Amino acid sequence: MLEDKSPQLTPISKLGEFGLIKHLTENFPVVQESTQLSIGDDAAVIDAGDKKVVLSTDMLAEGVHFNLGYVPLKHLGYKAVVVNLSDIAAMNATPTQVLVSVAVSNRFPVEALEEIYAGIALACSRYQVDLIGGDTTSSNAGLVISITAVGLQAEDKIVKRSGAKANDLLVVTGDLGGAYLGLQILEREHSVYLANPDMQPEMEGYDYILERQLKPEARTDIRKKLEELDIVPTSMIDVSDGLASEILHLSDQSKVGFHLYEEKIPLDSTMIATAEELNLNPAMAALNGGEDYELLFTIAPSDFDKIKNHPDFTIIGHATEHASGNYLVARGSNQLIPLTAQGWDAFLNGE
Amino acid sequence: MLEDKSPQLTPISKLGEFGLIKHLTENFPVVQESTQLSIGDDAAVIDAGDKKVVLSTDMLAEGVHFNLGYVPLKHLGYKAVVVNLSDIAAMNATPTQVLVSVAVSNRFPVEALEEIYAGIALACSRYQVDLIGGDTTSSNAGLVISITAVGLQAEDKIVKRSGAKANDLLVVTGDLGGAYLGLQILEREHSVYLANPDMQPEMEGYDYILERQLKPEARTDIRKKLEELDIVPTSMIDVSDGLASEILHLSDQSKVGFHLYEEKIPLDSTMIATAEELNLNPAMAALNGGEDYELLFTIAPSDFDKIKNHPDFTIIGHATEHASGNYLVARGSNQLIPLTAQGWDAFLNGE
Repeated sequence: MLEDKSPQLTPISKLGEFGLIKHLTENFPVVQESTQLSIGDDAAVIDAGDKKVVLSTDMLAEGVHFNLGYVPLKHLGYKAVVVNLSDIAAMNATPTQVLVSVAVSNRFPVEALEEIYAGIALACSRYQVDLIGGDTTSSNAGLVISITAVGLQAEDKIVKRSGAKANDLLVVTGDLGGAYLGLQILEREHSVYLANPDMQPEMEGYDYILERQLKPEARTDIRKKLEELDIVPTSMIDVSDGLASEILHLSDQSKVGFHLYEEKIPLDSTMIATAEELNLNPAMAALNGGEDYELLFTIAPSDFDKIKNHPDFTIIGHATEHASGNYLVARGSNQLIPLTAQGWDAFLNGE
Repeated sequence: MLEDKSPQLTPISKLGEFGLIKHLTENFPVVQESTQLSIGDDAAVIDAGDKKVVLSTDMLAEGVHFNLGYVPLKHLGYKAVVVNLSDIAAMNATPTQVLVSVAVSNRFPVEALEEIYAGIALACSRYQVDLIGGDTTSSNAGLVISITAVGLQAEDKIVKRSGAKANDLLVVTGDLGGAYLGLQILEREHSVYLANPDMQPEMEGYDYILERQLKPEARTDIRKKLEELDIVPTSMIDVSDGLASEILHLSDQSKVGFHLYEEKIPLDSTMIATAEELNLNPAMAALNGGEDYELLFTIAPSDFDKIKNHPDFTIIGHATEHASGNYLVARGSNQLIPLTAQGWDAFLNGE
């Protein structure tokens, strides 16, 4: 993709490791007051004041988490940051800094790394987080990106996966399953392209789900909205592996069961239409698809009135005693179907 | 190597991503009081109190930073942690936590990952740091390890690369060049083995330099020793890329020049003997070899008496005005040779 556009490419070896890092990171401004020392020293320093420091790390590998055949490098850089900010948001904390490491083979020119860093810069700017460190190295094959995100929050506002109680309400932000269906469309059009490179990909009408897959956003806005509603969730997680998998995590760590109502799962109309086009069950795509980066959380039943008609939140179920287990309550029949994690799994789907 | 010993190996896909992380991290105790929340949530929480939080991240790639033909996986895990703790020590901070991400192809069985994590656990125990998070994923080829280390220190004790002044003394811990010569021996014996697998490698007598390469230690002891001597260095860096490269970093960021005295560079006797055996200049190995993970720092001239006969420290030069430039003062002749960074470089040496 990139190779076609740029006739004059720079081999990475020309800049050297130090030159490359300096070159790639020179346009990152420091915007957080808490960033005392950023790139260029042995480590970064963060002024925590009376806030706690929250850290999260995530690794994305070519061929497993992304396919460069249809994922533009700039989107990849953007998404790599967003995925980590989503983890910080899932703690009810404010993301403040990121550290980024990239391993890349010499088949990538400097311009390819610049595209990745342009995406990283866009995410840093959009979410007002500072790039405070990282590493760039060559690898024998493939591209691997590892990101550590840092966030701050007062101790009594940090929300873990472990605080849900029986009868708490189960709430999710946004809509689910779109990122998974966006991926299906990208893979379909990529197969068509591989079979016949002269075919134009048919992407029209799929904008929303393609954006959900290629340029997801982290719900860093939710912390403030919950604060305005005077709600501190009892437990929270982000939806990275699929709704079913995340519910089982909350169940496991909070020692509760859950009833999830199929008819309550928020689904977008483009997503439903695409699922039907591809002969997929929309609810199953939401349950097992993953990569939506919405927030899933529980609140005390007494908070119901605060949240019931809010456009950002959908109540999709409730917690039960742990021994009751985890069930999907099927649309129409009200049949109880045991929830299992069939979510995206790097080891099962990779290679 | 590992493949020969274990007839019953577990494919990574059998455990799945969550099972694998749980399996690999279940034996890591939490030892730091500041670790409020560790593995198993979206992110880790660190109680900074009145201390600052220090973060460092580093990535190691197969074929570039290590060769599995002669680096045991357990040593690799150990070294990956130590390299990062060395960065924290170079800030004069105490390392307290690490986050570890590993990308690995399916050609590695679970037992291989267990070996890596056994090395990580040994380093965590040896240095009393907590493993607080991470990610494990498959990759299409090769092994990539990314580690983020966290450390704490009071603001007025944190030492940057940028504080050296003209006339400050240049000091280094331990001895230099050993790790580089250890690597030369490993590569020599590996070539012999590849040519004739029945040959026994000749490793005897090289113990010290092999350990410097395979199982380096971070100088986390130096912070306390400096405190006892009532010394706060004016600038500091760890020796990961070679003495010359590190001096140029201090020069660049402190806006000073340096005179480095060749005859003062601390060299171990095994290292000197091996260099001569291999027709290498021992001082050049120290200048350009890297991976010694000693600390290089500057102190005010008035601190000379506190440090002059200390067994851990060697005064190897002094800072000058920035415009004077950086020079090696040659043994005997006192000739001034311009210092250049010919240190190990991931992009020039890799691939």
